[in-house]
Parts: sequence; C-alpha cells; structure tokens
Amino acid sequence: MSLTPSLNERASRLADVMAQNASFLKVAVTQSQTGTRLIDCGINIDGGLQAGLAMARVCLAGMADVSLTPGDIAGFPGVTVQVATDHPVAACLASQYAGWAISVGDNFAMGSGPMRAHYAKEPLFNEIPYRETAQAVVGCLETRQPPDRSVLQHIADALKLPPAKVTLLIAPASSQAGNLQVVARSLETALHKLHTLKFDLKQIVSGFGSAPLPPVANKEAQAIGRTNDAILYGGRVVLWVRADDDQLAEIGPKVPSTASKDHGEPFADILSRAGHDFYKIDPMLFSPAMIVFHNLKTGKTHGFGRMEPEVLLRSFFA
Amino acid sequence: MSLTPSLNERASRLADVMAQNASFLKVAVTQSQTGTRLIDCGINIDGGLQAGLAMARVCLAGMADVSLTPGDIAGFPGVTVQVATDHPVAACLASQYAGWAISVGDNFAMGSGPMRAHYAKEPLFNEIPYRETAQAVVGCLETRQPPDRSVLQHIADALKLPPAKVTLLIAPASSQAGNLQVVARSLETALHKLHTLKFDLKQIVSGFGSAPLPPVANKEAQAIGRTNDAILYGGRVVLWVRADDDQLAEIGPKVPSTASKDHGEPFADILSRAGHDFYKIDPMLFSPAMIVFHNLKTGKTHGFGRMEPEVLLRSFFA
Amino acid sequence: MSLTPSLNERASRLADVMAQNASFLKVAVTQSQTGTRLIDCGINIDGGLQAGLAMARVCLAGMADVSLTPGDIAGFPGVTVQVATDHPVAACLASQYAGWAISVGDNFAMGSGPMRAHYAKEPLFNEIPYRETAQAVVGCLETRQPPDRSVLQHIADALKLPPAKVTLLIAPASSQAGNLQVVARSLETALHKLHTLKFDLKQIVSGFGSAPLPPVANKEAQAIGRTNDAILYGGRVVLWVRADDDQLAEIGPKVPSTASKDHGEPFADILSRAGHDFYKIDPMLFSPAMIVFHNLKTGKTHGFGRMEPEVLLRSFFA
Repeated sequence: MSLTPSLNERASRLADVMAQNASFLKVAVTQSQTGTRLIDCGINIDGGLQAGLAMARVCLAGMADVSLTPGDIAGFPGVTVQVATDHPVAACLASQYAGWAISVGDNFAMGSGPMRAHYAKEPLFNEIPYRETAQAVVGCLETRQPPDRSVLQHIADALKLPPAKVTLLIAPASSQAGNLQVVARSLETALHKLHTLKFDLKQIVSGFGSAPLPPVANKEAQAIGRTNDAILYGGRVVLWVRADDDQLAEIGPKVPSTASKDHGEPFADILSRAGHDFYKIDPMLFSPAMIVFHNLKTGKTHGFGRMEPEVLLRSFFA
Repeated sequence: MSLTPSLNERASRLADVMAQNASFLKVAVTQSQTGTRLIDCGINIDGGLQAGLAMARVCLAGMADVSLTPGDIAGFPGVTVQVATDHPVAACLASQYAGWAISVGDNFAMGSGPMRAHYAKEPLFNEIPYRETAQAVVGCLETRQPPDRSVLQHIADALKLPPAKVTLLIAPASSQAGNLQVVARSLETALHKLHTLKFDLKQIVSGFGSAPLPPVANKEAQAIGRTNDAILYGGRVVLWVRADDDQLAEIGPKVPSTASKDHGEPFADILSRAGHDFYKIDPMLFSPAMIVFHNLKTGKTHGFGRMEPEVLLRSFFA
Repeated sequence: MSLTPSLNERASRLADVMAQNASFLKVAVTQSQTGTRLIDCGINIDGGLQAGLAMARVCLAGMADVSLTPGDIAGFPGVTVQVATDHPVAACLASQYAGWAISVGDNFAMGSGPMRAHYAKEPLFNEIPYRETAQAVVGCLETRQPPDRSVLQHIADALKLPPAKVTLLIAPASSQAGNLQVVARSLETALHKLHTLKFDLKQIVSGFGSAPLPPVANKEAQAIGRTNDAILYGGRVVLWVRADDDQLAEIGPKVPSTASKDHGEPFADILSRAGHDFYKIDPMLFSPAMIVFHNLKTGKTHGFGRMEPEVLLRSFFA
C-alpha cells in the first residue's frame, strides 16, 4: 500500500510546524553535531499540553485526530486524551508503536514514530503493508537525556540516511508532553494486543480511544507506572472491524487488561512484585481497561472489560 | 436573506477539500456519465469516522461545527456526535434536512444538503428565507446504490443546472459515514419537530445537539432503527430561542420523543408493529430524547424529556 | 519576557478574522467617530456561541484553546466551556482578567484583553513579565451599551495610541457571547485567587479549566449571578505547577470557592444579602468549585473543593 503523502512526509510537515511554533509550544529545536534535528519536548524545557498533543500527532504520522476533553478522576477534575482514526494500523502500528529497540553501548531507548516504517526491520512490517522509503524521516524517543552522537549516527546508519535527514522528538514519560503522548496510546495498545493474539490486522477498519491524563511523575519509574495505569485501568477503546462474530466472542475477553492474571494492582506494584523485571510481567496485561468491537460484517457489537477507578485513584493520587 | 458565501458555495468548498483528501477519508470520487461528481462515502468503499464528519459538515453547508467526544453506552465505551450552530434554521432545515423526495421509476431516495435551497420547491422554503440561486450545488443521498443516469438527469433537470454542476455525496445509513451523518441530525430533528408543531422558526437563534454514535448496522432496516434510536432515546438538544415562556411551557412537553405514544421501544420494533409502514408511525416520535430551551427574551430555561439508556442498549447491542 | 508574536499581535489577527466573518459570527463591525474599531458581539446584534468562543480566544490573546463539549445540568442537556493553555499567566492574567477599571464621567466598565498588557498600569504588571509595547491593541468590554466618544478617547489616551489603533470587542454578560466568554474564565479565576493568596505565579506552568455554560440572562444582574455560579459551583480546574507540596497542602484548601464563608448560595442571593455592594462580598469566594494541582516538582497531586449541582440548578433554572 502506498500512502500519499507518506507517513514520514505527513510527520515531517507536522514537525516543521512544531519548529515554527517552538516558543508557543515550549519546545526547543536544535541541530546536533551530526546534523540531526532534535525537538526537545520535555528534557531541558517544559513542553506542555500542546507539545504533548503535537508529539502524539507526529507519532501517529498525522493519521489520527488527538484532542483533550474534560475528564474525572474519582470525582476530581481531570483531562481525557482522545484519539480517533480511520487508519488505525498505519497510524498506531506502523508509526506510533514503540517497537524499534535502539541500543548503542550503554544507551537504550525504544523508538517510535514513522521512521520505523522506513527502517522496517521489525518483524511486524512483514505483516502490515506500510514499509516506505522516505527522503527524510521523523521519530520519537522516550528518554531522559538527549541522544548522543553515537546514538544519532547509529539511527542514521540503520535508516541508511544522512543524519541531517532525521528529525527526533524527545521527551521522558516524566514530562508533561511525554506523559500525554504515552497516554495517547490507548488505541495502539489495543491493536498491539490484538496482534499478539493473532487477530488478522486487515480486519481492523477504524478506531476511537480515550484515557485519563495522569499526573506527571517526577521519576521515570513512577511515570511508567502511571501512564500504564491510565490505559490499563482507564483506557476505553472502540474498534470498527470486519470479522466473524465467533472470532470476536472468542478473542474479545482476552483483549482488555482484565484478561491478565496481573490485573488489579497499580503497575508500579506489579513491576515491583516482578523484581523490576519487565519480562516477568504477563504480556497480556498491556491493553485498555475496556474494548468494544463494532462488527461491520454483521452489525453486531461485542463489549469487554471494566474500569478500575479505585486503582487509578491509588496510582494518580499517591 | 442572502448569505455570503451561499450555502452551496460553502458546501462546494468542503466537497472540494473532501475530493482532495479522498484516500485519507477513504471516499471515492468519480464523474458519472452525465458529468455529475459523485463522492462515494460508503457504498463501494469503507468511508469512516472522518468521512462521516465531512459528510455531516457538507449536509449542514459548513454552517455548523460537528465533532466527536468520548461517550458511554450503558457503561461501555462509545462515541458521541456533537453539533453546534448559530444558524440552526439555515444549517439544519434549509440544508441538512432530508426533505426532497427524489423518485425516478423504481428509484427513490430522500435528498438532503444545500441543493435543496437551490431547488426550493419544498413548501418549507415558503417559510424560511433561504432560497438561493447557485452556480453549482451539493447534495447528499442516503442510498445503498449509486444513482443511475436517469436519477442524475432528473436531479439536474429539477435544479435547472447542467449535471456537471452537481456534486452528490452518497452513502447508506448502514455504512460508517452514513451512520454518523444521520446521528449528526439531533438538532435538525428538534427543529423539524418544532416546525411541525407550528413553532415560529424565526424565534430560533442557536442550537447545540449531541447523540450517541450507534454500531453500524449491516442491513439498512437495522441502520434506520439504530440511528433513530440514537436520537429518540439518546439525543440531547439545547436551543437558544426568543419566545414567550407560556408558549415554551405549552409546546415544550410535545417536543421530545417522550411526547409520542410510540415512545419506549426500539424503533425497529415500532416499525415492525406498524407493518413496516412508516406512515403509520406517529410523526410526533421523531425528535430527540431531551430538549432544553434557553429563552433569550426572558432569561428562563425550560427542560423536557428523558433519556432511555435501556432502550439504547437493546437496540445497539442486539 | 518578550513574546513573538506579542499578545496584542495575536489578538489583532484573531479580531481581523472575526471581522472577515462578521455575518457568520453574527457580530457587527463599525468604526467609531474616533476611528476605534468596535466589534459588537451582543449589544445591538445577536452574537452567539461562535462569537462567544471568538471573544474568549481574543481575550486570551490566542494563547489558549477554547472549545465546547456536551455538558449536563442536573440531568438536563447542557454545554461545557473548556479552556486549555501552557501559558496560563500570560493568557489569563496579562490578558483575559478584567482588571482595568475604565471610568469616564458616569461611564464605568472593566477592561479585559491584551490591551491591558500595553497599558500595564495595574500593579499586577509589576509581578508578571508581560508588559508590551504594541502598534495596535485589542481589548474587551463587558457592557450593555457601546462606549461613547469620551470613553474611546479616554482609552486611547491611556494607551498613548491613536484611537484608530484600538479594537474593542463589546458585549454584555446578558448576551450569548458575553455569557460564554465570562464562563471561559474558570482558569483565570483560579489564577487570580492564587495571586490574592500570594502564591508565586512563576510556579504555574499549564492549566485546564471547564465550567457549565449558564442560560443567558435577560438582565445584567442575573447574568452576573449565573456566570459567577457557573464557576463557583461548577468550575473545575487542573493546574500544573512547580512548587513545594507543603505549600500546596497549605494554600490548596483556600483556593476553591468552598473556602469562603459566603459559599453555598446562588451568587444573586449573596449579592442581595450584601446590600448589592460587591465590596461586602468575601473576595475569597471568586474561584472555581474544584481545583487539582499536579506538582511537577514532586509528582504529587493535591485536590480541593466540591461541586454544588443543586445550587447550579437553582441558579440556572430559576
């Protein structure tokens, strides 16, 4: 499938607009020694709600609407992050999913954004038709420190592009923008879980997701805990699919986080119980609290999961 | 009253933008043999949420804001379609209302959109000041099959325009976009009901409506049932009017669907009980679940009707 | 701090767009004898929801997002006005706050909007870094009658600008647009209260507020009552700050309107009990019903206040 404009072209335009509005967005644009453009959304600068929305839109390659509406956390005022797209696989899996493990020496970060569709070495790209060859790419890194020269060179080499053709948006989960862009992944986690469950992704047509924006943590571990909790216990997803009802009835109960044996505690506690080893956590945990499938093939609706406001309260107001 | 730009000029611009973004919107633009531009939003192509929003905005001639917010159907994640306008009579009655019965041989469809203001043969146009003479017009047809040559020629003749000056957006109610654009009619149904009750339309100043987006049906009859239920049992409308409070107190209770003897069952059941004869259904049924009037003349508020989430659940999750 | 574009440049662009869309927005643009541009949003013309949104955005100098979402007043359909900004002090205090007392003979009005940052004689501007020197300014006046020649000359003189370099948006609180733009001040009232409580404004990073849009009153006194009630009893604010938790724990309970001895009755009754003397009302009353602080310094959240839907119902449906 060839998208026009491509995922990276769409994201590049959005990144250019971010750069033009840097002071309003409270982001900092710098050129690294390698020539790579870095848009700092929350490391050495505040960032904010608008930077978070912009970062989420870039991560989704401009293929999804992202916006804020009033929310509620156990009776207290909150903000809800909503995502809507008619291109869920392209937006969420080919672009937004943090699937590229970038490891150089001691440095390690997960890369997301449409640069992944140009890199396209992840096995996922054998299953989805969104490989593309871009003149310039855009990616996002969830990190507490700007990538150094060796990381930037490594990324450019992997992409087979001059470093100057790469734009990277960077922010830790423990920043306003980083926090928001992670919580804009309610829909993405549902798609990724479906992929893990071997649901045929070609059956997915459109998606709408929402999750509560958690308080920004000041430590990365807490940030990871809260953003996971926002989705695991507060994420609500609607998917329009074209499938068999039997298949949806069978796979559906496995999709929300309620299906996991680890479900029910704040993520930080789960991680602690697992000896801080991510790989000991049940991978079935990572999905929204609730999901509704609208089956376009039959007109039937299937709904699964439940909200856990008490766990959110414990996690957010700790 | 002469609007600048006119209803059809506004809608034409929006239709042009739709055509330019056809692949993103998952709509198909074709030129029929007669030269009429057809924008298929859900017959031979998926369409989607964005196509539905675009279709709704065109139907409202660009005179209303239409957007999505997170919703809830009996505890399950949903999507709410909201409409806001300061030109409710122009947007909803002169344009959006499906009031033009287009009948050629065996073909029959109700036409909506601003082409109605150019056609202007419906008696309604004797009561509202929105007749216009357009160089090019835009209309919408709720249909499962593209209009054939005879229908397109009939429409052009009725409009006294060359067929090439007509743009038609087409989709069945049992498509994503068709489903959404029908549910964007919460406000329109309130206005139409008020007109039926002989409320002076000049008294209506602004409007805000919302309704839950139902699951897309796979049969047209079910689609008509669910989209009606969305409005009858989940539609919420706020109208700003300039009227007498006595008049509002008297007419108000008749406006929401609760006023109808047929109220209370899913629309499909009502239709079935009526022997599938639309004309045996109480016309007073067709209006939102709840309405609030803010009277600008006196500062008083009048609220009527009630939600029926149980009926929505039966209709949507059937 | 020097903003580029400046507050007045941003607001001027928005005002120009309003003027270009005057008929759609139902506002009237006139040039006074002095040359000052007047944009009437609700005195001799209807205005509406869109005029109210535009007016709010101008008042906030284009530094905040303002939008509408579906709301609920004691079970009845309503509209919620939401505001989001990463520049809360610039947007709300340097611009939106109605802090300039304009008094000429018998005429008196409170001026708001970015012209205040150019005037900059309010003591507040000694504490916030947003004084600016503009070539052209924009302001808002909450008033039932257009300012006369003497008022316009007084404003221009105070600004040391030719009257033709001033644009004023005017509307009473008892108009649709005036009503809406007042209720878009949920966040501003929280900031102003914090300032009164001597909270260091430099600690405030981002803000999100919402409040229910009240019915438009037909008398100014009732309008002032209802718009205050919307915020005092329905306003919900989230602030991202960088502060000490002890400080937030101490000052927090004083921020919402619940902290005031006058809290609990509709504002009109409070005002009546105070002999219609504003200055006898506890100044601690003027703030949102609820506030949540997210402390970026520590990751802790602090929430205060409570909603009073019963009081809203009495005020709005009176």
